[in-house]
Amino acid sequence: MQRYAHRHLSLSKTLTFGFISIILVGTILLMLPISTTGGNETSLLTAFFTATSANCITGLTLVNTALHWTFFGKVIIMLLMEVGGLGFMTFTVLLFLFMRRKLALTTQLLTKESLNLNNLSQVSIVRWVISLSLIIQLVGAALLFVDFYPRFGLSKGIGYSIFHAISAFCNAGFDLFGNSLISFRNDPYVLIVISILIIAGSFGFLVWQDLLLYHKTKHLSLHTKLALRTGSVLIILAMIIFFISERNFHFDQSGSFFDRLVNTIFMAITPRTAGFVTVPYNKLSMAGILFTMALMFIGGTPGSTAGGIKTTTVGLLVIQSWATLRGNRDAEFGHRRFTQENIFRALTLVFVALVILGVAIIILTFTETVPKGFGLEYIVFEALAAFGTTGISLGLTAHLTVIGKLIIIALMFIGRVGIYTVMFSILNSEHPAKGYRYPEESVLIG
Amino acid sequence: MQRYAHRHLSLSKTLTFGFISIILVGTILLMLPISTTGGNETSLLTAFFTATSANCITGLTLVNTALHWTFFGKVIIMLLMEVGGLGFMTFTVLLFLFMRRKLALTTQLLTKESLNLNNLSQVSIVRWVISLSLIIQLVGAALLFVDFYPRFGLSKGIGYSIFHAISAFCNAGFDLFGNSLISFRNDPYVLIVISILIIAGSFGFLVWQDLLLYHKTKHLSLHTKLALRTGSVLIILAMIIFFISERNFHFDQSGSFFDRLVNTIFMAITPRTAGFVTVPYNKLSMAGILFTMALMFIGGTPGSTAGGIKTTTVGLLVIQSWATLRGNRDAEFGHRRFTQENIFRALTLVFVALVILGVAIIILTFTETVPKGFGLEYIVFEALAAFGTTGISLGLTAHLTVIGKLIIIALMFIGRVGIYTVMFSILNSEHPAKGYRYPEESVLIG
Ligand SMILES: [K+]
Ligand SMILES: [K+]
Repeated sequence: MQRYAHRHLSLSKTLTFGFISIILVGTILLMLPISTTGGNETSLLTAFFTATSANCITGLTLVNTALHWTFFGKVIIMLLMEVGGLGFMTFTVLLFLFMRRKLALTTQLLTKESLNLNNLSQVSIVRWVISLSLIIQLVGAALLFVDFYPRFGLSKGIGYSIFHAISAFCNAGFDLFGNSLISFRNDPYVLIVISILIIAGSFGFLVWQDLLLYHKTKHLSLHTKLALRTGSVLIILAMIIFFISERNFHFDQSGSFFDRLVNTIFMAITPRTAGFVTVPYNKLSMAGILFTMALMFIGGTPGSTAGGIKTTTVGLLVIQSWATLRGNRDAEFGHRRFTQENIFRALTLVFVALVILGVAIIILTFTETVPKGFGLEYIVFEALAAFGTTGISLGLTAHLTVIGKLIIIALMFIGRVGIYTVMFSILNSEHPAKGYRYPEESVLIG
Repeated sequence: MQRYAHRHLSLSKTLTFGFISIILVGTILLMLPISTTGGNETSLLTAFFTATSANCITGLTLVNTALHWTFFGKVIIMLLMEVGGLGFMTFTVLLFLFMRRKLALTTQLLTKESLNLNNLSQVSIVRWVISLSLIIQLVGAALLFVDFYPRFGLSKGIGYSIFHAISAFCNAGFDLFGNSLISFRNDPYVLIVISILIIAGSFGFLVWQDLLLYHKTKHLSLHTKLALRTGSVLIILAMIIFFISERNFHFDQSGSFFDRLVNTIFMAITPRTAGFVTVPYNKLSMAGILFTMALMFIGGTPGSTAGGIKTTTVGLLVIQSWATLRGNRDAEFGHRRFTQENIFRALTLVFVALVILGVAIIILTFTETVPKGFGLEYIVFEALAAFGTTGISLGLTAHLTVIGKLIIIALMFIGRVGIYTVMFSILNSEHPAKGYRYPEESVLIG
């Protein structure tokens, strides 16, 4: 236990301070004169915000990415996204492998069947994760090039294809068109390619592995089953709700029914947590905005490029709550029961996320101004978009005060690196277990 | 375990269906012609809504209590509040005593020291709770009469004193002045008496007992310590925040500094979960509205007349989360550690509350209209006021659609009777434990 805590803490610290270092390097590079186009200036805070947003693959921007940054600046942003997306996936693989070994040594809970990783070494798994990610992004870029070449010509076409394939797979949400994908809303081909890249990125390496090895193993782990089930339920639910709430985009009369269908599907997928938009979110109905917030809070699968509290967390808690309310002893799914530690971790995560968001939002209501026509959602949406690393905006980000920018930067960082990882590092949570324990006592609840 | 589940379920069912029966009787009585003043009419839905609001001591109203109801109608509402407030406290005593016995029998976890109830029989405790409550209300009414007699004369003075003492102690929030306590905002005496009644009611019987027996025992239970600590932290925090956010009521230039101070204190106390107001909530700043929502969600102490997820729940979870993030094994407070079951129950309660509120709010965004000048807070505030049985309103309740009314009724009921109690009853959660258990497996979280 002692040793486990130590190792876990070192990994947490490595990730936290690794990310901070990369962001600082990115900030310096973005502040170089060759990063900014003529006539524009980049303040320290703008560079810091942009580097954080790119490295934490959030996608919130203070300046127009297409116009403000030079080719060099755009390459820096692209590299920050790629390092952020792949770096995090790789780290999760390492942490997972380490935890699995610890579990296998101490409790023998995880069998070969449930993980299918035993025959691969640590290095080969990391290599495998990175190769697979690069291949998917390359195929995505090639598919985008088919559409972008006629539009933008060869060199711009190649650049745009690579940039947006990376941005989509990493769930980053940065774009070079100045208005996200709004000009592609009647181009179902691009939207479908981008959607597939987003979903592929938000799966995470465990799901990918299970899917790719399924022809051999004929087995999916509990993690994969739960992630896929929760993910599809959410997408279907989102489609139904957006179909009703936006009445099939009543505010946009152009486009065929098929185009609108694709836009609705895109709208159900993008809050987990890609951040590309095809419709202006400030024109959505209150129900549409609220449900988007819920989707941003939930996010994607752990160990993927997606943010949020994660689909598995929500799926597990729904199953567990239902079991508790039904008076059942075990929370069961797919002929397995969840471990107590697992449930505990999920519940604590949700509570801590709520506290952090609550404090951030209250500070923002003090420092920021809500424009006419908006209410509380204007601030809450932005905080969730940052914490969930989704990066959609109702408009606040462009008008943030200095304190507001710093809070959004902090939310992006905690949201991406993870509450547990950041807190373990900051609080230096490595304590020798005390030699005594207090007696137990209960309080009344609920 | 089997027997425990059975007994627990019977108690839950008794409470759920007991409350429903009382509400239905109240609805019928309020529909009688002698309940409604001349010129007004009471629809079934209005009577049902009012009876639910009174019995669940929420205080949200569709009609002006002072003008719409006759003396007879007002007495019915008063009785519904008293039965709701005391009935619930009494039930909690019974449930608590039963659980204590079960625990004492099975695990010997609770010692005489930690509860101080062992020397009292079940009946005498219930009698004690009811007597104490009635005495406090009577003293409160007498204190209010000092102010109300000169204002309203003898008979009206007596009636108003009793009605508002009950409404305050039961944290009900009904008033006979037509605009809550706004006309008393420059009358610190009334505000202070009402505040003390609110706090007294929101303590709950365990805290009362500990405090009253302290001269003998020199000991406070963990429950009492945690409830008092969390409660005072919240009130002080609320005062600081409201002082800043409302800049000492900049929108109200009348009144001395002392009056404004009393109003700020009142504003910090009333969301837990009394529902009396001295300032129009729709004039508050966004920060003030948001923090009021947080206070309504938290509410008071379990086993009291207050609603919400309860101070002990929040206090326990803050301590537990901090311990988890610090890497400590135990969540400790006052030289005790909380039981795992206790923490688990608290975490699940918060998650289920969020899911229920989330679903209710999404439906309300579909059915209700947000007026100009407001945003999402207009709907969320009302849902929290109903669920937390606080009963403050930004204005939605008066304009609710039929579906909206039914949802608010459901929220008031679940919020008062309790998520666990209602769900256990509805789902008939009594299952023989299965003879087998599935193997354990973990998923990735966060
Ligand atoms: K994003
Ligand atoms: K109330």
